[in-house]
Parts: sequence; structure tokens; C-alpha cells
Amino acid sequence: MEQPRQRAAANSNPLTTVAFLERAPTAYADCPSIVYKQTTYTWSQTHRRSLQVASSLSSIITRGHVVTVVAPNIPATYELHIAVPMCGAILNTINTRLDARTVSVLLCHSEPKLVFVDHQFSSLVLEAITLFPSNAKVPLLVPITDDEPSPSSTLGFIDTYENMVAAAHHHRKELSIATGIFINTLSSLLDWSVPHHPVFLWTLPMFHANGWSYTWGMATMGGTNVCLRNFNASIIYNLIKRHNVTHMCGAPVVLKMVVSNSPTNEHLEKPVQFLASGAPVPAPLLLQAESLGFRVSHGYGLTETAGFVMSCAWKPQWNTLAASERARLRARQGVRTIGLMQMDVVDPERGVSVKKDGLSLGEIVFKGGPMMLGYLKDPTAESSCMREDGWFYTGDIGVIHPDGYLEVKDRSKDVIISGGENISSTEVESVLYSNPAISEAAVVARPDEFWGETPCAFVCLKDELSETPTEEEIIEFCRTKLPHYMAPKTVVFKEELPKTSTGKVNKFMLRDIAKAI
Amino acid sequence: MEQPRQRAAANSNPLTTVAFLERAPTAYADCPSIVYKQTTYTWSQTHRRSLQVASSLSSIITRGHVVTVVAPNIPATYELHIAVPMCGAILNTINTRLDARTVSVLLCHSEPKLVFVDHQFSSLVLEAITLFPSNAKVPLLVPITDDEPSPSSTLGFIDTYENMVAAAHHHRKELSIATGIFINTLSSLLDWSVPHHPVFLWTLPMFHANGWSYTWGMATMGGTNVCLRNFNASIIYNLIKRHNVTHMCGAPVVLKMVVSNSPTNEHLEKPVQFLASGAPVPAPLLLQAESLGFRVSHGYGLTETAGFVMSCAWKPQWNTLAASERARLRARQGVRTIGLMQMDVVDPERGVSVKKDGLSLGEIVFKGGPMMLGYLKDPTAESSCMREDGWFYTGDIGVIHPDGYLEVKDRSKDVIISGGENISSTEVESVLYSNPAISEAAVVARPDEFWGETPCAFVCLKDELSETPTEEEIIEFCRTKLPHYMAPKTVVFKEELPKTSTGKVNKFMLRDIAKAI
Repeated sequence: MEQPRQRAAANSNPLTTVAFLERAPTAYADCPSIVYKQTTYTWSQTHRRSLQVASSLSSIITRGHVVTVVAPNIPATYELHIAVPMCGAILNTINTRLDARTVSVLLCHSEPKLVFVDHQFSSLVLEAITLFPSNAKVPLLVPITDDEPSPSSTLGFIDTYENMVAAAHHHRKELSIATGIFINTLSSLLDWSVPHHPVFLWTLPMFHANGWSYTWGMATMGGTNVCLRNFNASIIYNLIKRHNVTHMCGAPVVLKMVVSNSPTNEHLEKPVQFLASGAPVPAPLLLQAESLGFRVSHGYGLTETAGFVMSCAWKPQWNTLAASERARLRARQGVRTIGLMQMDVVDPERGVSVKKDGLSLGEIVFKGGPMMLGYLKDPTAESSCMREDGWFYTGDIGVIHPDGYLEVKDRSKDVIISGGENISSTEVESVLYSNPAISEAAVVARPDEFWGETPCAFVCLKDELSETPTEEEIIEFCRTKLPHYMAPKTVVFKEELPKTSTGKVNKFMLRDIAKAI
Repeated sequence: MEQPRQRAAANSNPLTTVAFLERAPTAYADCPSIVYKQTTYTWSQTHRRSLQVASSLSSIITRGHVVTVVAPNIPATYELHIAVPMCGAILNTINTRLDARTVSVLLCHSEPKLVFVDHQFSSLVLEAITLFPSNAKVPLLVPITDDEPSPSSTLGFIDTYENMVAAAHHHRKELSIATGIFINTLSSLLDWSVPHHPVFLWTLPMFHANGWSYTWGMATMGGTNVCLRNFNASIIYNLIKRHNVTHMCGAPVVLKMVVSNSPTNEHLEKPVQFLASGAPVPAPLLLQAESLGFRVSHGYGLTETAGFVMSCAWKPQWNTLAASERARLRARQGVRTIGLMQMDVVDPERGVSVKKDGLSLGEIVFKGGPMMLGYLKDPTAESSCMREDGWFYTGDIGVIHPDGYLEVKDRSKDVIISGGENISSTEVESVLYSNPAISEAAVVARPDEFWGETPCAFVCLKDELSETPTEEEIIEFCRTKLPHYMAPKTVVFKEELPKTSTGKVNKFMLRDIAKAI
């Protein structure tokens, strides 16, 4: 009988995403890697530029250091996704929509040695640094000037990014080993059937889970990264046409913005694959997007899972179903991608799997390679989600349908428990969205002496309605479409809903309002 | 500074190809998994059947046992690629073209606990067992009767395969952990751009490196495995038409057989992807195949690398080149696939990289995940190829072109060294093949007192030639197309060339003939 083997040097090379980029200058040499404004780089150039940045970095940082990037989806951000892991350092991309106070907290926690700052966000970062406690160490700042003149204030700034590209030292090779993102990069490419030489429009911020690992994915397949600093629908349609974009990603809100502002309402010349995540795509949006030539896929994951690890695997026999039924199936988060080893939905109290009946709510849990190694310097948060039973607890609530497909029902905090029954706020919201008078809706728990909690709806009405519905009419509308206990007991009309810095509805604020009613 | 992390249970699940199959009954449930003659299985059925076989197996075998399969590309062979790793056992598929003596040697060496034997090969295996040394342990035999009646001789046979499928025990879960083949399965799918729901025609024997990992690959993408027991061109064309085949693999000789016997010489209704490996596809065959609607890709690998790990990454700008130039580029083995971490060509004497000039010959070496763990019970062979410098030595000879693309020139034993110059026999052969009078050619070294060795060509002429070339004319033909020293000094005309049991030209035999001239 054969005994388990020790691995030998030849078969135990660490799996690193840097390997994808090292292969690109041969496999894709003169093929375009990045287009941005009037500049086009080739894969040979992107490889060389990244290597030169890594070389400059390696005289300042070493394995285990944190390097922060505060920048939009520009070439430098892409190159730093290669250069930082090439030095064995930890890449920390910060959401550029955050406020100075939050950025300050993040910088103090992660203690980066260097912060790369795009000129658009230099005042944000400089303000964040002024908020540091007096004993905190101020990081070195590297400005990314892009095509703008150098920033007026150079407080704390060292060499510019382009100077780091220009300086050619000898790079001390010191790779980040990242099995999880290696596996998830391959898995996300396969799951979305990304072919060789895709043209990827960067509407998804790279700071969101490294662009769901498609940063490295584009190096893997020799894709063209269409970078952009800011965007609106008109910019997106122009870039799609100009560069023959084949793939793009984003939250459903991005798809909605694109679809609602189609310049001609004409079908795209060539189909564009749109991978949506963050929330299910509502049925009307899905149908509208498909009629314009977008092919919508639906994935689900977290930053902690290196991007999406569940996806709504589409069965050919579903193509013949009615449009509304197809939309209902497509809205589910689906099955694990091939990089994820196990998924389950468990009763958070008892830790056992819920029934696969599409009704029993439980917490979504994962096992497998794409899970993060852990949170930086936060063992408490880490052990609360990576538990001793071997599962990663997502904090999200879902059901498993009889066919084994997962459907996310809520963030665990968004469950409303009324009379002992769990109510998913998103389920109530989706009914509200189906009301033709309502443009935006959010549902939160309102404390209730009798029921414990009741659903409280906040709605915005569409402009120019011939007649506006009353609170009673909206409640009645919900009662015709939901179990009685799930219909809102209260409806609050708002001009607009409060949002967080990442554009999500600020439910904490709405809960406070509901409590005070 | 962040210190290296221990991996936690949630992120360190072993990577096993069994996970692909466990996902399939959900992601691909009622989609066809296997079609064979009049039978169609779904992925739910294939999962259940494999699990039942694993269950039956787990009462007999355990982790580390060897299980041998001697069978053609039938459903049982596919299912055993799942069931055997599900038990933590080692799958050993034997080339069905071998003779009884060789099979006997293989069985004695690997000491399988069980041998699954298809009825077509039961006499082969039974004869092999009669050749065992008297002290060798005879394995248990499990007949696969397929749709044939039970074999007349049941010597040493235990339960049939279908009975093992029917028996439902409780399966002790004991997975084979196989990071290398996990990585190579994903890598091979991505490299060939295999989409969801491909229809894969099994012309490539599954016993060749597990069908280049596409056995597991089909479970990953929800493909349909079109199985077949034996085939010829007419069977292949019928199956392509009947099942809308999208993908198939094989050595160039298979492609040649298919292309030369196109029933109508008409273009295929839909293009079929053909992945060739084992040898480059000669230019005329490539052009002919493409004109019929085959899209030819070219990969290179070894059984030791779990399938192909190099492939001729195609650049869009090459599409505009002349056909002959495209064929020349396509014939190269190309760049590493994304699963392979490093590739090099080294001077075997000095161990340093050869020049990337397309001329300097050296041994092809690899590093990375897809490399085998080792040879079963053969530490000498293992250490001769998996060396302490961390490289796996392939024994194959190649050059690296200035663009970084590998071209395999020869098996190391096939290099002819004449006057201190290395001559690649395949290079001379490809010139011989370009002679319109020659149907088959092989070149070996002939000992020579002055030059050390000279190239000696063995050629078969085509039927019905208006005039047959002389030895001098063929040598002169080569001299016009090759450096003088590379042209054969001797040409031997043969009716047909001797072949090994796997259909390759038997060069050992030709060397003996050349020596005796």
C-alpha cells in the first residue's frame, strides 16, 4: 500500500497570482493589456512597469509590510495589484468613497509603510492623516499624478509613482503566496466562461475584493483592461463601442444606471457579458438588460472569499421557461463555484443544516481554498467568523431550494422577527419594488410591544404620478402578495433614502427613525 | 508587520477533483453527463452511480490501495475516475493496447487490490496473470460486462461492476487529495476555453493521463461525455452529427484519420475544437483540418504532468499571416499554461538555460503544482527526473524561440549527434514528410566512424506514384531544405514502418537496422 507522500521541490511551488503576470509578456506579448484615455499598454509593457515598481518598492518594503492604495481604476492601481505581491507585501486597497474619518481609522489599524495616493484623493488622505492620534506613525505617501500636474501640497510625499516606474533597480524576488486568490482567480474565470483576449471594462472598483479577482484574471487570459477614472452611462456606452468591450461587472445598481440611460435604446452591436453581484438583479431590470444585449450572470461572495464563490449555474432547459420564471431562477445565488469546496446553510442556534425547502432560513457558511487567511490584527473578529467547526460564517441569511440552489435572503442583521416568525426584509422590499408607483424601498424592523418587531417600510414614490398611493394602499398591496405577517405595518414616505458611503441604503439610520416613530 | 499565517480549517480544505463531481448533481442535475450507445445518464445519475461504486469499493479497499482499470472509454471507466479517488485509493489505468507480458509486469509492480476488466480485455488480463511469478499475489478481478453477456471464464472474478453499482452500502468518505490534478484540471479547461455544457467526444483514451484531466474537467463544466468502445472515421462523424460534438482530443494521427476520411469533404455543420498533443500537427494536415471546420489547438505535456502544461497560445495578430507561417507558429508547443509555475530549457551538461534563439537545444524542465507526486515504488526513476535543484526533467529536447515559445525538437534519445552538431530527428522527418512522394518517414542515428553518427532515414512511398524517387533524390531534396549536415546520409525504403503497441514508430528497432547496414 502506498504511503502518503512528502511533496518534492518540483511539485510544491507555491501558488501565486504573480505567476499569471509573469506568463503574460510571453503568452500575450504585444496584445493590449490596458487602455486608458489615449494610452494603450501591451502585456510586455505592463509586466515591465510592474516589475520596475516592484523593484523600487523592494528598497523600501519587505515581506509582511502593508502597502495601501487609494486610487480609482487607473493603470497604476492595476500595476500595484502585481507589484505589491511581487514584493511579498500585503496590498490594502481602500474604498475611495469613504470619508476622511474612516480612512484615518483604516490607516491607523493597518499601519502601511507606504500609501499610494491618486491626485483625486490626496486631500482625503491628507485630511485622514491629520486625524491620526498623536502617537500614530504617519506612512510615506507616493502620489499618483496620472495626467494631472503634481499636487500643490506635497506634505509627506516621497517620489511619484511614475518615478518609481522609471527607476530600474534590481528586484529582490519575494512573492506573496496566495493559494486562495490563485484558486479563486481560476474559478471565477471558468465560472463566467471568460475566453482568451476578453475586453474588460472596469466599472467594478478594483478596491472591491481586488475586482473580484479579475485584476489577476485579465493577466491570466490576456484580456484588455479598459480603465476609467469616473464614469456615467454615456462614458460606458462610448467605451463599449470604441473598444469592443466583452465583459463588465458591477452591482445591479450599475446595470440599472446603464440600462436606464441607453442612448438609443438600440441593441448593442455585440453582446456584453455583465456579472452582477452584491444583490440579485430585479426581474424587470434583467429583462430590460437582456433586450439591450447584455447577458447577465449572477454571483455571490464576500471580500473574505476573494470575490464570488457562488453563482447561479444556468441550465439550458430553463431557456424555454417564461421570462418571469427565468428571472426568478436567475435571482438566486445558486451553487458553489468550483473553487469553493463546501457550502451550507445552518441554523445559527443549533448549527445543523436547514431543510432544503426554499423556506427555512439559516446562516450561509463556506469551506475551502478561497477563504481569507484572516483579518489583519483582529483575532476576535476572525475567530467569530472562522470557527473551530471548520466553517467560515458569512453573517448572511439564506435558504436552500429543493434543487440545491442557494438564495440569499438577508444580512443577518436585516432579519425582522415578528411574532416568532422570521421575515426577510429583502423579500418585502422586492414586493414593494413591484409596485408601479414606488421608485425605491427599504424595510427595517420597528420595535413593537406585542409582536416584538414589525416591518416598517420606507418608500420613495416616482415623479409625475397621476395619483399617489396612501400608506393603507401600499400595505394592502403587500398583503395581496405576501403572507399577512410579512406585510409592513408602517409605511414612511421619503424624498430619498439615506445612503452609506458605499451607496447602500443606510439601514442603521432607518432603524433609528423607525424606533422613534 | 504581518507574520506568515497558519492556515485555519475553513481555508485549508484539501483540493480534490472529487469536489467537481460532488457539485455536478446540483449545478448540472438533469443535464446529460454520459451518452453511450442508446444510454444517456444525467449528472445526478453519474454522481449516484459513482458514489455507489465507491461505497462498494470502500468495503474492500482503503486509502493507499491501488485499483486498476483495463477498459476502453465506456461509462464505467469514467465513473471509476470518480469512485476510486472517492475512496482515497490510487487509480491505475492500463493502456489497453499493451501486450499480456507488459500488462503482467505492470500488475506485478503496482500490486492492485482490485482490477476492473472490460470483457473486451478479459483474455488479455487473464493471460497476463498466468505470466505472474509464482510468488506474486493475484488481484481480485471485477468484470465490466457492459452490454455483453457475462464472460465465459470467470476465473478469479468477483462481483460484476453493475452489481457494485447496485449495492448501496454506506460510503466511508476518504478522499484522494490531489492538488496537482485539481490545478491542472482547471488550467486545461481555461487554456482550451472550454465553456459550460461542452459535448466531448472521447477519442482520446482515458488511460492517457486520465484523458489529459478532461475526465474531471467534464464534471467541472457540466459537459456531456460521448463514450465509445472502438472508433473509426465514420463512427466519429456520425457521433459528431448526432450529439453536436463541440470538443475532442487526440494525437495528430487521430486528426489525420478523421480528416482523410471525411465522408463528404464538406464543412462540419458546427466547428469542432480539436486539441492535439503528442506531436505537432503537420502544416498540410492543419490546413486541411481547418478547411473542414476543425479548430486545432496544440498542447504538450506528459503523464507525469497530469496532462498538458504547455500550449501554443495564439495571438490574434497571427491570423493575418500566410497559411504556412500560421502552421509553423501553431506547430510550436508554446508557453506554459497557467497551472504550471515555471518552464525552462537547460543545457543538460551544465544545467544552465539555453539561449532563446530557436536553435540552442536543451532539455525541457518544469516546476509547479501539476507535477506528479512521484513514481509508484520507483525511487530511482523518480530521483532521476525530480531533481534536487527543484526541477522536473522531462527527458524531452527543445528550443526556446526569441518570442519565448517552446518548440519540442525530440525525445532526448532521438537526438542525432553528427560531427559535434546536434540534429533533431523530427526536424529531418518533417522535411521528408514535405516530399510529395513520401507517406511515412522516421529518422534515427546510424553509427559512423568519421562523424560519430549520421542521420539514417526510413521512408515509405505513396501508392501509385508515376515515378518513384531514388535514395540520392531524397537526400538531395533534404539538402535543399536543411543545413548540409542534417540531411540523411542513408535512405532505406520500407513497405511500412515498425510500430510499438501504442502506435508510435519503433525507433529502437530502426536503430538496430541502421546499425546493421
